[in-house]
Amino acid sequence: MRMAELARASGVSVATIKFYLREGLLPEGRRTSPNQAQYDDTHVQRLRLIRALVTVGGLSLAATRDVLGSIDRPAQPTLDLLGTAHRVVAPPLPAVVDEAPAAALLRRWGWLSCLEGGGAAGGSDDGVAALAVALQALSDAGFAVDPATMDTYGEAMLRVARAEVGGVPTDSPAAAVRYVVLGTVLVEPVLLALRRLAQREASAARFPVAG
Amino acid sequence: MRMAELARASGVSVATIKFYLREGLLPEGRRTSPNQAQYDDTHVQRLRLIRALVTVGGLSLAATRDVLGSIDRPAQPTLDLLGTAHRVVAPPLPAVVDEAPAAALLRRWGWLSCLEGGGAAGGSDDGVAALAVALQALSDAGFAVDPATMDTYGEAMLRVARAEVGGVPTDSPAAAVRYVVLGTVLVEPVLLALRRLAQREASAARFPVAG
Repeated sequence: MRMAELARASGVSVATIKFYLREGLLPEGRRTSPNQAQYDDTHVQRLRLIRALVTVGGLSLAATRDVLGSIDRPAQPTLDLLGTAHRVVAPPLPAVVDEAPAAALLRRWGWLSCLEGGGAAGGSDDGVAALAVALQALSDAGFAVDPATMDTYGEAMLRVARAEVGGVPTDSPAAAVRYVVLGTVLVEPVLLALRRLAQREASAARFPVAG
Repeated sequence: MRMAELARASGVSVATIKFYLREGLLPEGRRTSPNQAQYDDTHVQRLRLIRALVTVGGLSLAATRDVLGSIDRPAQPTLDLLGTAHRVVAPPLPAVVDEAPAAALLRRWGWLSCLEGGGAAGGSDDGVAALAVALQALSDAGFAVDPATMDTYGEAMLRVARAEVGGVPTDSPAAAVRYVVLGTVLVEPVLLALRRLAQREASAARFPVAG
């Protein structure tokens, strides 16, 4: 198909498609003349993936390029997929914070893999730092989460993670990286939307509104 | 304390404090001369709250102003706190999407309060739309979440929400709005950080790394 058809099929404007081509996010089409190229379904799928990462994933252009790169060229057939995926999509962390409260929480739950920081990647430290920053922000805002609720958060996320890790394809590293990277970026908005809906559901039970 | 001391106590630079004063996010201090004002602990706390919302909550200046406004002046002693909180912090939604898959999921789970859309606020529709956008992005990216994993997401978020709604203070509307708004914005990064750490924990069990 030509570019105008690609725009219709993908719902992405010609101007935006040209931008993604220039930026190298979208592979070139097959040239049929100096001014024309043919595109196919792989281009439609790639455009939909880019749009999903940018709009719902909220990724910057640079982060989108990193995610696509990690999917196109999985660095090595390693099983530290989560480390790779998390580093690609991790937001930049603000100033250094005290990691002791986060570490204490993880120790209390027995999440020791996160604390060992072992392996050449060392990516686990980023995860603990991200938790430390989030806990510090709660504390700075004067917002106390009681320990029982915090335990509920941990248990709920462990259930989620077990279901997710159970689904990671093991047939090829490329498939596994794609699954983990997209799952990290694109499932977050699903979980946050579900939390808000569940709050309404739980709230309707506790605070029935008259009328 | 003077502004320089306020900067030390809060960890926010004088230039940033002046910016927040100009933007009306931080209340003026008590003037002691045309060029000097005295600040107190409420200013330190307010600055910490603003920093938490901006850095960890990832809120824009406009959204931060809305959140602070909803905390300072809870609109009315209504119990539709969640609707208020969610509207304040909801990210702008991309183009219109098909809400049928989201509605089908909520019906399957019996989350009917979310679908009724009742009440003058009608805020529940925004929640369903946010879920619809997130599901559409998964589908656009060619990423299928199997129904059992999706059910796990729903159950986990309902557990989280029940614990949270149980903790909402009922003594004053202002306290309740503050709790819900900050809980929505500031707990999201905690949950996402925990999910990633839990993935490492679950992954270490499934894919033990040698060495």
